[in-house]
Amino acid sequence: MSGAMRFGQCGSVLVTGASRGIGLQMVDSLAGGGFSPGKIIATTRNPDGAQNLQDLALKHPNIHIIPLDVLSQESIDKCAEEVSRLVQDEGLNCLINNAGINLMTDFHTVTADKMIENFRTNAVAPLMITKAFLPLLKAAASRGGAGGSGSMSIQRAAVINISSQLGSVELNWGESANIKWFPYRTSKCALNMVSRCMATDLEPDGILCLAIHPGWVHTDMGGPQAPLSPEESTSSMLSVFGGLSEKAHGLFLSFTGEVLPW
Amino acid sequence: MSGAMRFGQCGSVLVTGASRGIGLQMVDSLAGGGFSPGKIIATTRNPDGAQNLQDLALKHPNIHIIPLDVLSQESIDKCAEEVSRLVQDEGLNCLINNAGINLMTDFHTVTADKMIENFRTNAVAPLMITKAFLPLLKAAASRGGAGGSGSMSIQRAAVINISSQLGSVELNWGESANIKWFPYRTSKCALNMVSRCMATDLEPDGILCLAIHPGWVHTDMGGPQAPLSPEESTSSMLSVFGGLSEKAHGLFLSFTGEVLPW
Repeated sequence: MSGAMRFGQCGSVLVTGASRGIGLQMVDSLAGGGFSPGKIIATTRNPDGAQNLQDLALKHPNIHIIPLDVLSQESIDKCAEEVSRLVQDEGLNCLINNAGINLMTDFHTVTADKMIENFRTNAVAPLMITKAFLPLLKAAASRGGAGGSGSMSIQRAAVINISSQLGSVELNWGESANIKWFPYRTSKCALNMVSRCMATDLEPDGILCLAIHPGWVHTDMGGPQAPLSPEESTSSMLSVFGGLSEKAHGLFLSFTGEVLPW
Repeated sequence: MSGAMRFGQCGSVLVTGASRGIGLQMVDSLAGGGFSPGKIIATTRNPDGAQNLQDLALKHPNIHIIPLDVLSQESIDKCAEEVSRLVQDEGLNCLINNAGINLMTDFHTVTADKMIENFRTNAVAPLMITKAFLPLLKAAASRGGAGGSGSMSIQRAAVINISSQLGSVELNWGESANIKWFPYRTSKCALNMVSRCMATDLEPDGILCLAIHPGWVHTDMGGPQAPLSPEESTSSMLSVFGGLSEKAHGLFLSFTGEVLPW
């Protein structure tokens, strides 16, 4: 069974930042793939302004759009309550922390406020969201996953953090260090640490946790010169996600599945 | 010549967070080592409350205490002006970003505010301080260092960021992952990224930049069960600093000089 097909055994998947870019494409690919999860929960700050997502939901009744402002604890808690009502005892199988921003300022123009803004959205929000969804992830994990095997997988329970290769300190050297985005690089590096910390905390409950680099993708964030289309990146990532086991727990993977240095 | 002795060829060294712990010990060891820098600039938020530091300055006239609140851009700018008047055309040879805090809350009790507070002090402040001191570091670097050799060293110009092994994502696994300090780990990991980013920006001016792990030190922060005394940690670090060359540029070192993984 291919990785993407395994989503057909997944009761529920939640994608944050689903109004555009990689998030929207993930919802699209999950809904249209022929092996669709039971419930695809797509969150966005302003559902009314997310026309593409609304159009998708009209075509696919398993898409559920729920408002979520990742910077507001009140909004996070409210979203978790709504999802709880939706998934009930089955819990949430797969949380994909995808929402993020990219502040590209360099050494000379960077400010403390920009550093904090990017950190808050890209590293702190995924932590606070995962905390809020922990009871639902635990509920799903306690059911044991596909076939009740009890091994770690997205069919059981998983937290996937969409990070970036630009968050690798090791790889930030030589030619690749020419991308001098202090706030973005620091925020994704911090997300990697949050991901690694959470992996230790989630493991006793059987909840898989890892960070993934989606590649350099042609989106509003990635810009027009990016080599990968959202479809290519997402198709590759969903295939990787579907095949995840405890071997990937706590790691930083590329969209192709290879292990990246921190 | 031993590493610590090379500080005798160093016109000026600035240590932030010098009122206690490792910062105070650094000032003490630099002042009393027999090969003391021309000017030891010790910063602390509240000089009037820093009795131990005041006592040291009475004994050693090359210690200059200057107020610095690392969270205030106004205070950072004012401190840079005062240091500029003090060092004049010679510039600042060595900036040691030591000030830091340790918020030890775990997955279940961590809040967004605690994450941001620790990040701001430990990762953002060193960046903003380095930016403010850049003209003084450049002035020192342009003089070429000891013997005008033009190679990278603390005698020429250097930024040293006091990080922590707990900021290594790679090492945050297995037994060492039992230290579940989300805000602290994330802030030091972010400081490592800031350090690596700055290394690229400072290199064209001949300014050395790296991060160092001081060991687990018996201070207010490290606690009484820590195996290293402040003297042992500082003595080892000063020896490493004195011997630094371009080979260490952009790296993460232990207080013993070995390279740590990110």
